[in-house]
Amino acid sequence: MSEPRSRAGGRGISFLNSAATTSNIFRPPEQFATWFAERKAANHFAVDEIAFADMDAWFFEEDSGDLVHCSGKYFRIEGLEVTTTFGDVNRWHQPIINQPEIGILGLLTRETDGVRYFLMQAKMEPGNPNLLQLSPTVQATRSNYTQVHQGRRPPYLDFFLHRERCSVLVDQLQTEQGGRFLRKRNRNMIIEIDAATDIDILDDFCWLTLYEIKQLLHCDNVVNMDARSVLSCIPLVDQESQAMYAGLRREDAHITPRQDEYAQQLVRSLVEVENAEHSLETLVSWFTELKTLYELRVERVPLKDLPRWSRDSHRIAHSSGAHFSVLAVSVEAGSREVSRWSQPLVADPCRGLIGFVLQQRRGLLHFLVQAKVEPGNIDVVEMAPTVSCANVRQRRQQGTTPPFLDVFLNATAEQLRYSSVQSEEGGRFFHFENRYMSVQIDAGETLDLPKNYAWMTLGQLLDLARHGYLNIETRSLLACAAMP
Amino acid sequence: MSEPRSRAGGRGISFLNSAATTSNIFRPPEQFATWFAERKAANHFAVDEIAFADMDAWFFEEDSGDLVHCSGKYFRIEGLEVTTTFGDVNRWHQPIINQPEIGILGLLTRETDGVRYFLMQAKMEPGNPNLLQLSPTVQATRSNYTQVHQGRRPPYLDFFLHRERCSVLVDQLQTEQGGRFLRKRNRNMIIEIDAATDIDILDDFCWLTLYEIKQLLHCDNVVNMDARSVLSCIPLVDQESQAMYAGLRREDAHITPRQDEYAQQLVRSLVEVENAEHSLETLVSWFTELKTLYELRVERVPLKDLPRWSRDSHRIAHSSGAHFSVLAVSVEAGSREVSRWSQPLVADPCRGLIGFVLQQRRGLLHFLVQAKVEPGNIDVVEMAPTVSCANVRQRRQQGTTPPFLDVFLNATAEQLRYSSVQSEEGGRFFHFENRYMSVQIDAGETLDLPKNYAWMTLGQLLDLARHGYLNIETRSLLACAAMP
Repeated sequence: MSEPRSRAGGRGISFLNSAATTSNIFRPPEQFATWFAERKAANHFAVDEIAFADMDAWFFEEDSGDLVHCSGKYFRIEGLEVTTTFGDVNRWHQPIINQPEIGILGLLTRETDGVRYFLMQAKMEPGNPNLLQLSPTVQATRSNYTQVHQGRRPPYLDFFLHRERCSVLVDQLQTEQGGRFLRKRNRNMIIEIDAATDIDILDDFCWLTLYEIKQLLHCDNVVNMDARSVLSCIPLVDQESQAMYAGLRREDAHITPRQDEYAQQLVRSLVEVENAEHSLETLVSWFTELKTLYELRVERVPLKDLPRWSRDSHRIAHSSGAHFSVLAVSVEAGSREVSRWSQPLVADPCRGLIGFVLQQRRGLLHFLVQAKVEPGNIDVVEMAPTVSCANVRQRRQQGTTPPFLDVFLNATAEQLRYSSVQSEEGGRFFHFENRYMSVQIDAGETLDLPKNYAWMTLGQLLDLARHGYLNIETRSLLACAAMP
Repeated sequence: MSEPRSRAGGRGISFLNSAATTSNIFRPPEQFATWFAERKAANHFAVDEIAFADMDAWFFEEDSGDLVHCSGKYFRIEGLEVTTTFGDVNRWHQPIINQPEIGILGLLTRETDGVRYFLMQAKMEPGNPNLLQLSPTVQATRSNYTQVHQGRRPPYLDFFLHRERCSVLVDQLQTEQGGRFLRKRNRNMIIEIDAATDIDILDDFCWLTLYEIKQLLHCDNVVNMDARSVLSCIPLVDQESQAMYAGLRREDAHITPRQDEYAQQLVRSLVEVENAEHSLETLVSWFTELKTLYELRVERVPLKDLPRWSRDSHRIAHSSGAHFSVLAVSVEAGSREVSRWSQPLVADPCRGLIGFVLQQRRGLLHFLVQAKVEPGNIDVVEMAPTVSCANVRQRRQQGTTPPFLDVFLNATAEQLRYSSVQSEEGGRFFHFENRYMSVQIDAGETLDLPKNYAWMTLGQLLDLARHGYLNIETRSLLACAAMP
């Protein structure tokens, strides 16, 4: 086991330091946009919607009607019958992505001149609305990293497989969307290489500080889902680094007093465990009760027999027109060596909303967490943001909006702490965007909580994160909205 | 959510206090044996092995040959095909107990005159070698606590269901034996009632201190598996109570200097996190790697089609004579109102061994933990003791003993920290006993660890326990051998 060399204190400080430093010795921050535009121009990538029949190597399996790849690899689109005691709808059928393997989402990091940097990749994915986004250093499937003799091994993968000369800062199993994937997890890793390690930086890669990444997370659709998931695992601050924070923060001339106050509240919510509204034991008890209470039964059903779902030449869709659909795309990529493939993607009819309600409680910033059952969950319930709602426009038309949605729809500028549009993993989702928000309500306001909601501090959320309690929407939103 | 009234410091002290107090205001400790013998005499309980055909309400299902109850309730004995990349045997078939519901194992506690007491029940189970053992206050199945109008509700159950006037000290989902149960968990609860609460103590119940329970855990077959599982969840000490420990401990005149030194080592191993050999992050990374590495595929197979397993009138057994078997018993219980039932039980041919190797490392006591794959595990791998080996005599004859078994077989009196014989849950297992041991090797000794073993402190083990990392053998052994 490779042990971080300095354990106490140092880590948190160096992460915070990276979040507060406005310079970058590898490339000045103001040149990032030019570099990113160059990468977009340099990489040819064409995506077209096609008929299922025109897909290469994908076909509908005879008996089941499941959508599968002829190699038996990658993933399958199957059918599910879901029965649950959670929520208003207690039985339904839906397609689901089955990809029973653990991939690696890996981020390389190093310290240079006392500042921590992260190696990000400019990567195109067919489902990204803008094609190019920033991904972690490595996104590798299991076949990438177990088939030793395969030609196209992702660059830098060896740092994550052979960690003898590296320190492992983060290495956790984290889940994907339980509404779309059947029990899918990835290994989220942050690996530190020694400043002395000689490493070639390829054209599509660049070293960024946490400050730069944080700025980019305020833009729409720049930092991809996988990168957000890994970034959410960062052990941001510890007790020792808290005192340093105020001093560090001031390097940034652009910060407004309100932003600065919010950042200070976030740091306190990270480190001041003893003033939390609930103890960790109480939160575990609350979650235990809900796991006992809610039943979830998931049975595989042949895709062709899914009630109310039908398939035409171009879509697998629900008869109501609501809900997501499955479509096919062809992709042509690469400038010199051109590669072509086709694949299914999952598309949602309109934008979703993923949001945290925040409130100062006992003088400490708390996050309102929802325990949520989704069919692909490994263990019935996961912790979700206050609201995580697909297809908001449709839901409002139908009058079936989830609790607390109004807090976000009616939020004033004064209450708004974060707002951006982010897209979900472009390797599986087609132009699937969500509005990400965090809204801080007045300390005096009282919300009536259904039993599957609880207030937590940021420190408690990150404690629970490493054991796999938080769903991907929660982690993704925390990366965006809760980095001080 | 019912929050413990005093959160910091007080809990740990009151648990430790209870572990160090040699008196009991409800019944003097020296009268326990008499009370326990009286309970045995008062409760008529007769168990006989019978033919499967003579069972009442249990039958072999026509299509599958599975052993089922005519109500569809309780549990089923089914067949499994197991394929895994873990260990030497990579494919096998076996029967398994399928009981897809979460039961409650609940322990009531109170403080009286500054001492914490636990309400234990003298309870007979058909599979117990000595019939009567001490169980938690409540052992309830889901049907016990969801069927409101059922006649025989276990006493004291309401304290665990309606917790408005109580404090929840422990409330965690914990797994059962992954080698015998398919993904079975119970809710382990410790609920504190106010000293002022008026509570009737039934004949089969008694208030015990942790000191008394600890003494009984040194006897063979007195404290049952369910009680050991709940007791292992106790948040024993915190930073504040550490200083008090030395003073508290001395109340016990019978303690030897070696026992006292071991107790001190245990307390330090609980609280001195910063000197642990590995950080918690590193342990999570080690475990993540193993979950990625080991594959486990479990497919249901009709019990009648299980290769190499066969059924005669009295047994379902493996053709080799090794491994466990399934048998049937009839039970007659009760003194006034007599109730009769029959049920299947699982029997092992000879005694197993469950043991921790301990070592002082960096001046702190460490436990050697094994990451182990078992077919009924919910998430592939769980943390097991250094050795957890069924049928030791058979395994030695076959020459297929697991790593580190010799450390226990060759242990000197000087190295031995704990040794007793404990039986597994008598509601499912027939006279299934294990030797429980902990053996402390010399600080200078070097063990060569296979990659699925790691050293941890007691504090780290208990941290991981609340999130469900520890299998039942680990928890049971910790309750026995690691209570200071």
